[in-house]
Amino acid sequence: MKTLELQKAFGLDNLVFSERPDATPGPDEIVIRMKSSSLNYRDLLMIKGMYNPRLKFPLIPFSDGCGVVEQSGEKSGYKPGDRVAPIFAQNWLYGPPGADTSRFTLGGPLDGCARETMVLPSSGVVAVPAHLSDVEASALPCAGLTAWSALSSHGGSLAGATVVALGTGGVSIFALQFAKMMGARVIVTSSDDEKLEKALRLGADEGINYRQKPDWDKEVKRLTGGEGADHIIEVGGAGTLEKSIRAVRPGGCVSLIGILAGVSKDLDLRPILMRNIRVQGILVGHRQGFEEMNRAVDAHRLRPVIDRVFPFQESKEALEHLASGSHFGKVCIQI
Amino acid sequence: MKTLELQKAFGLDNLVFSERPDATPGPDEIVIRMKSSSLNYRDLLMIKGMYNPRLKFPLIPFSDGCGVVEQSGEKSGYKPGDRVAPIFAQNWLYGPPGADTSRFTLGGPLDGCARETMVLPSSGVVAVPAHLSDVEASALPCAGLTAWSALSSHGGSLAGATVVALGTGGVSIFALQFAKMMGARVIVTSSDDEKLEKALRLGADEGINYRQKPDWDKEVKRLTGGEGADHIIEVGGAGTLEKSIRAVRPGGCVSLIGILAGVSKDLDLRPILMRNIRVQGILVGHRQGFEEMNRAVDAHRLRPVIDRVFPFQESKEALEHLASGSHFGKVCIQI
Amino acid sequence: MKTLELQKAFGLDNLVFSERPDATPGPDEIVIRMKSSSLNYRDLLMIKGMYNPRLKFPLIPFSDGCGVVEQSGEKSGYKPGDRVAPIFAQNWLYGPPGADTSRFTLGGPLDGCARETMVLPSSGVVAVPAHLSDVEASALPCAGLTAWSALSSHGGSLAGATVVALGTGGVSIFALQFAKMMGARVIVTSSDDEKLEKALRLGADEGINYRQKPDWDKEVKRLTGGEGADHIIEVGGAGTLEKSIRAVRPGGCVSLIGILAGVSKDLDLRPILMRNIRVQGILVGHRQGFEEMNRAVDAHRLRPVIDRVFPFQESKEALEHLASGSHFGKVCIQI
Amino acid sequence: MKTLELQKAFGLDNLVFSERPDATPGPDEIVIRMKSSSLNYRDLLMIKGMYNPRLKFPLIPFSDGCGVVEQSGEKSGYKPGDRVAPIFAQNWLYGPPGADTSRFTLGGPLDGCARETMVLPSSGVVAVPAHLSDVEASALPCAGLTAWSALSSHGGSLAGATVVALGTGGVSIFALQFAKMMGARVIVTSSDDEKLEKALRLGADEGINYRQKPDWDKEVKRLTGGEGADHIIEVGGAGTLEKSIRAVRPGGCVSLIGILAGVSKDLDLRPILMRNIRVQGILVGHRQGFEEMNRAVDAHRLRPVIDRVFPFQESKEALEHLASGSHFGKVCIQI
Repeated sequence: MKTLELQKAFGLDNLVFSERPDATPGPDEIVIRMKSSSLNYRDLLMIKGMYNPRLKFPLIPFSDGCGVVEQSGEKSGYKPGDRVAPIFAQNWLYGPPGADTSRFTLGGPLDGCARETMVLPSSGVVAVPAHLSDVEASALPCAGLTAWSALSSHGGSLAGATVVALGTGGVSIFALQFAKMMGARVIVTSSDDEKLEKALRLGADEGINYRQKPDWDKEVKRLTGGEGADHIIEVGGAGTLEKSIRAVRPGGCVSLIGILAGVSKDLDLRPILMRNIRVQGILVGHRQGFEEMNRAVDAHRLRPVIDRVFPFQESKEALEHLASGSHFGKVCIQI
Repeated sequence: MKTLELQKAFGLDNLVFSERPDATPGPDEIVIRMKSSSLNYRDLLMIKGMYNPRLKFPLIPFSDGCGVVEQSGEKSGYKPGDRVAPIFAQNWLYGPPGADTSRFTLGGPLDGCARETMVLPSSGVVAVPAHLSDVEASALPCAGLTAWSALSSHGGSLAGATVVALGTGGVSIFALQFAKMMGARVIVTSSDDEKLEKALRLGADEGINYRQKPDWDKEVKRLTGGEGADHIIEVGGAGTLEKSIRAVRPGGCVSLIGILAGVSKDLDLRPILMRNIRVQGILVGHRQGFEEMNRAVDAHRLRPVIDRVFPFQESKEALEHLASGSHFGKVCIQI
Repeated sequence: MKTLELQKAFGLDNLVFSERPDATPGPDEIVIRMKSSSLNYRDLLMIKGMYNPRLKFPLIPFSDGCGVVEQSGEKSGYKPGDRVAPIFAQNWLYGPPGADTSRFTLGGPLDGCARETMVLPSSGVVAVPAHLSDVEASALPCAGLTAWSALSSHGGSLAGATVVALGTGGVSIFALQFAKMMGARVIVTSSDDEKLEKALRLGADEGINYRQKPDWDKEVKRLTGGEGADHIIEVGGAGTLEKSIRAVRPGGCVSLIGILAGVSKDLDLRPILMRNIRVQGILVGHRQGFEEMNRAVDAHRLRPVIDRVFPFQESKEALEHLASGSHFGKVCIQI
Repeated sequence: MKTLELQKAFGLDNLVFSERPDATPGPDEIVIRMKSSSLNYRDLLMIKGMYNPRLKFPLIPFSDGCGVVEQSGEKSGYKPGDRVAPIFAQNWLYGPPGADTSRFTLGGPLDGCARETMVLPSSGVVAVPAHLSDVEASALPCAGLTAWSALSSHGGSLAGATVVALGTGGVSIFALQFAKMMGARVIVTSSDDEKLEKALRLGADEGINYRQKPDWDKEVKRLTGGEGADHIIEVGGAGTLEKSIRAVRPGGCVSLIGILAGVSKDLDLRPILMRNIRVQGILVGHRQGFEEMNRAVDAHRLRPVIDRVFPFQESKEALEHLASGSHFGKVCIQI
């Protein structure tokens, strides 16, 4: 079977197509014919060697995917034709992550979804909602689940709460969709009025152009009667965290998601404690959360927002498109 | 009535005793004859002008106190002789704090407990457990409730979990006592073997001398089979946060309490999200938490650990003793 | 001021209009000019002597109301012109109810809202959402809050869950509206196709006519792929509980609300434990819940469904209309 | 391998020893050499045909067990010598139970632990705490986990709460031990002063002899200052439920556990709703709960209370001893 891989070195230019032998499934395993993948910023960093420089080669990239069961072990509980998506952290089924969770994630260190067939244990996949296309379904495993985990981590109901999604990338657009589904009021930020327009059409209540209003935190406060938002989906990391901490209400929550988070210079910790704020790191999520999200996606016939679909051969171009930051929603691959 | 106050300027040397007229209670108010107070690091910073430099004078300091009802308004629900403690944030009864919660805290900006009598609305006090002395009861409002709120904020049961209390000040010793009560295993850190010895006698399971083992985070990991602790009571702030984030297990919680938190230089945010960690700021707590804590203190006949009691006239010496850092548990004042 | 009251005996025919002196507010109190009330089944039972036969006369009935502040004590935090609704259980502000909560409920044993003016402490009222008419706002305190408390009691998110509302009375219609707001799929039952039609127009996903399908529990299972619903809003009590327990999924929740609950004959308890079901009794709710509900009502510009408005003089006719069971949503009174 | 089984008919007298062929494990399976079992009332009812009359023969009884891994499939994650306990509901790993959970429980309908060797998938067992003997470890899967699930289901901390355990059977004694570990005050009821004495020695704060005080609910109220207990571990079922509902405080929880629950005659539902009570059915629990419980058992070096150990050959006598009700804690079998 055909696969994309980094063979000996990091870098977009070192991505090559290659052939690997097909595998046979054990009694609890399935062979999946991959139909699609979706890209995350993590994939880009991984390929460039900026996520985990000690990674071993060769590596098949891409954490996300959707495919159809082709062969199934007799104890797998699946049958040929079932449509499934792999879970990002293969051994994180429920509860808190384990000490070794990050050693079992797809797209690095484990081989990912950029290939024609894939063998996984039955616990490593979930069924996907029937109303979604393969491409749409492949948007769920990382970006969808990250947004879902962030919004669920707070515990209570979001009905009547205000959620701020920073930017219009994959996670932020899912956060917008899920927060609306849960009854929240949603504020989206972007540097691009056209993207804000799109976000409003998707249900956002307010848009803030942070190029025109660099003090977007003050704008959030103004839009919430001086109180601040209940929950900030923080994908910017070090660059925006201080503003997020100012934009959230006392007792509120900042979900720290951005893989670009990096090193924060001179972060003033006092507002965190004096305003009783929670900063919650989110590493995608567990299988249980994926199943709960799928139930909601199914019940609402929610459709992930796909920015653009590239053929498998043009994976490099797809990654460059993601890197450009011009996308709105998910950049996907048809395999 | 006699009162201690900052009249015109910040500084320990500007603390003077003064006389103020006695007040009469409204129908929902009570007059309390103050019996005791306990000191918090916040009091020291407040007096030195380092907590809130824009504070208005004169100010009666000290957030914590315990007293006896002397007169009671007919709708107050209290009667003379009842023993009560004021709540730190006078208008924070339950739920998340409000935008104005920090404007209604005792010991600044509102006048505090360093006086002979005090008039408060009935909602601004709680009854204190009967088995406690006045001095012991005055240890609860800030240090006790902060530890209680931190341990409760995580949601689930602590039975079998590992809690790390940094140091042996007021909040940390309460955290040790409450965490043991809730079934946790407790690790205490200190630079002083004698204090560690005392902590072990109070029920701590392990002590780490961070002078001897500056990489105390590695020691915590070793003591937890490589996993890390479930919950860190972080009172050190900027100086220790990075180690706390390394010492906590994936999915665990760091309660950010230390008023000295300050500005963190070059804080690496990536472990927060890659290890799914929660950093939870704690600003003392609400009245509901105080009542729940008192119920538990009462049921367990728990006794706060009092380091030393100073007479009211020696309040300055008491503050200097607190500043020295040589205490173990609470420094108190008899009024 | 004019008031409706039961003077010496129970019974609809013993309701008379009377005059009482106006009161002056204490420093923490307000005088409210009542504008409207809404009726609950509890009011009917109270008046008939079926709710609390030992009630003392005279009693002003009606738990629900909305009015405008006319005078305000200087510590009340309110000013003339503010629009407020009394809370049902006057001393239940947050947390679990107290042993005496049921002794401080409006409309019995405390005097209720069927009068021109009312004096209450500031903690006994909440501000109402600005977009609501007086009549709409008076629908919230019992029926609205009961539905909100029931849906919130389960803890987690309802996005993607299935909620069943039994019937189309006040609580059930609020449950339908709130559950949709929170992302649930809603099934409504009724004996009347016209009412089901109305419920579908309000957003219900499915309607079951329990006259045509007396085994509505089986229909719920069919509509949920054999699983059962996540949450049943059980207002029927003894008569329907066994079916509700069969209609809910393993691990699901039945909120027991119906004041008509009565005595259940031969209730088989085994399905409760063998299917891990929660039966949660709901007694309206606390002030904190009322505030949270109002925030959501406000954010969504949600409008309570009003069946019919009667003038104050026709309160008896309004009660008879409620007793007839022909209503859909709330029966209200203009004062 | 030798096994105990019901071959063709229900009844203690139809239990016979038999031989079955040894099995080989698949890649994700393990062969366990069973060392011990513990008995539950459910086992007795199952054998007598009172739990599930439609059960298929032959059936190997006993839900609980502990054994040592003898062979392990290469993907099982276990190795020979590991000590494990099977989980009661083999496919209930986390979250709410599924519609089919009760079809995959050991000791009926699935074959149970009364045999020399057993093959299970790796997800169907958990490692057991090292400080426990085999017999002690075999007490955990049903009785231990049921008590743990009941006390955890309420959500918040139990520190300072009052828990009532009805009787001194396996579940109740675990509930006593776990509730003390979590900081609760515990009241135990029994008809036997000697058993109450033992319970007090295990840490119970109060004992009530319900033969001497048939109105034990009033005694619970007296011991809680008139308020009622926070949580009742209700193992009596229909016979005691009404008293449990009276003994619990407003807003409290009754965990419905007793397999003897049966049919409740004329249960008055009104106190459930008027006092905001939660009745929570408990069906043992999931794998995640088992792991959390084991962590706590391990951290506290908690030892299950074993009433008496019978050799495998005397399994019938062990069941008769359980049926007599004279035990205190768990009745166990050495295999």
